[in-house]
Amino acid sequence: MSIAAASLCGRWRAVTQTALQRPTMRSTLFVCVGGSPNRMRDFAIFIHQELGLDGDGSDIADICAGTDRYSMYKAGPVLSISHGMGIPSISIMLHELIKLLHHAKCRDVTIIRIGTSGGIGIEPGTVVITDIAVDAFFRPQFEQVILDKVVIRNTQLDQKLAESLLRCSKEIDDFPTLIGHTMCTYDFYEGQGRLDGALCSFSKEEKCEYLQKAYIARVRNIEMESSVFAAMCHLCGLKAAVVCVTLLDRLQGDQITHSHGVLTEFQKRPQKLISSFIRKQLQMCT
Amino acid sequence: MSIAAASLCGRWRAVTQTALQRPTMRSTLFVCVGGSPNRMRDFAIFIHQELGLDGDGSDIADICAGTDRYSMYKAGPVLSISHGMGIPSISIMLHELIKLLHHAKCRDVTIIRIGTSGGIGIEPGTVVITDIAVDAFFRPQFEQVILDKVVIRNTQLDQKLAESLLRCSKEIDDFPTLIGHTMCTYDFYEGQGRLDGALCSFSKEEKCEYLQKAYIARVRNIEMESSVFAAMCHLCGLKAAVVCVTLLDRLQGDQITHSHGVLTEFQKRPQKLISSFIRKQLQMCT
Repeated sequence: MSIAAASLCGRWRAVTQTALQRPTMRSTLFVCVGGSPNRMRDFAIFIHQELGLDGDGSDIADICAGTDRYSMYKAGPVLSISHGMGIPSISIMLHELIKLLHHAKCRDVTIIRIGTSGGIGIEPGTVVITDIAVDAFFRPQFEQVILDKVVIRNTQLDQKLAESLLRCSKEIDDFPTLIGHTMCTYDFYEGQGRLDGALCSFSKEEKCEYLQKAYIARVRNIEMESSVFAAMCHLCGLKAAVVCVTLLDRLQGDQITHSHGVLTEFQKRPQKLISSFIRKQLQMCT
Repeated sequence: MSIAAASLCGRWRAVTQTALQRPTMRSTLFVCVGGSPNRMRDFAIFIHQELGLDGDGSDIADICAGTDRYSMYKAGPVLSISHGMGIPSISIMLHELIKLLHHAKCRDVTIIRIGTSGGIGIEPGTVVITDIAVDAFFRPQFEQVILDKVVIRNTQLDQKLAESLLRCSKEIDDFPTLIGHTMCTYDFYEGQGRLDGALCSFSKEEKCEYLQKAYIARVRNIEMESSVFAAMCHLCGLKAAVVCVTLLDRLQGDQITHSHGVLTEFQKRPQKLISSFIRKQLQMCT
């Protein structure tokens, strides 16, 4: 792991700093991040087309092609970056991204995580804009181990940005969108109360009781990256949002039952919302 | 994240269960896992050639090509699988792998994580075979959150397997190899005492004091997956080992200073050792 992680930043500096500092570069930069390299490539092509940039974007190059740890694409003032799965994976990417933005002297950066999640008590396909990330005990905090000490960090996302995104969604009016708490876990199976992993030591009743408690604590969806994302962006003064579509209602079960076509459309929803928001910010919608 | 994670197991069952159950399949199965998809493809080709299988292996197919979450290759009785970076990412893969092995009725499975790591007080290029994984506080345990409770799990690796691997390394006698504790962290920068991340709140002296304490606690290398790997394999009765090469000595600094060529050779070392071990197990060396 260490080679890619340590050298990536060096590569990014060499390759991307130049790209970011092109004279035609707008002062406003949008960084969109998500787990899957393919999905972030699709998003880069989509936003390329939505912004009316030259060509259809299908020849867009992976700036991080030398490593298979992350992918990064640039479409006009938008960077689209993959971060893999889980807190440790996104945390490495964020350290290196933040160093890159610093060295490239970027100002007015908005960073948005777009992803998929499990919903709690809401219709599948609903887009959840996170107000605050909570841990598996519903605490609005992220525990960062530094040397042999545990440091508690704030996981509040940018409130104004969340409200702007909600207003944007109302203008699109294509799919349900709401602002809610997002629970961020270190584990997909036991940590999210799934009954269908290789290991399961609890009953369906205990699982349901836990998820009901989460709903009462105002958690509306569950994913695996938002807490460290919120904490690091907050500390570094980056305007940050988390916008995830829910693929199922965990109160109803653990397995996704919608067809591939429906799920593909669900996954486009955060992308549509973010595209609309970015175009509005760039005053392309007025 | 959820689509890939939930559907991967289904795909694996459909595609790989058949492959695993081919009549020509040996009863002994070796599963080798590592972070990078490219490295695990290289390993699959390498082991294909080492086992003298038909062809040069360069046309080996990714059994998980439909997703970009993980890659999986099969070369004779060896599965080579990527797991991404960090505890959450490898944990999802292990849940789905263990279900796959169960449904494919595999017996006599040996699972080995091969990777890179930061060394502590040992020469870069040394291969460390883990006896036990410890956390950032040097405790030999893994904390698994299940619903809203913390469960402590055993992180002991298979002692006989570790000793067999050490004996194998002595026969190769190409590079230094030792058995030691491996520290597994949730974070590459602050969590491993690096001074060169985007955030750093401690002095060089505090970092050195922490790493010295780790050395005294018999930690010889640091990586980001071994604890949950050890815990899950232990619970599921899988013979498991962690074999990582060290790319630098963290007591000397945070940056890797060796050339690309040297690092590439370092990364081949765990692969060479595992190949020698597998060939010995299959009685190909006698």
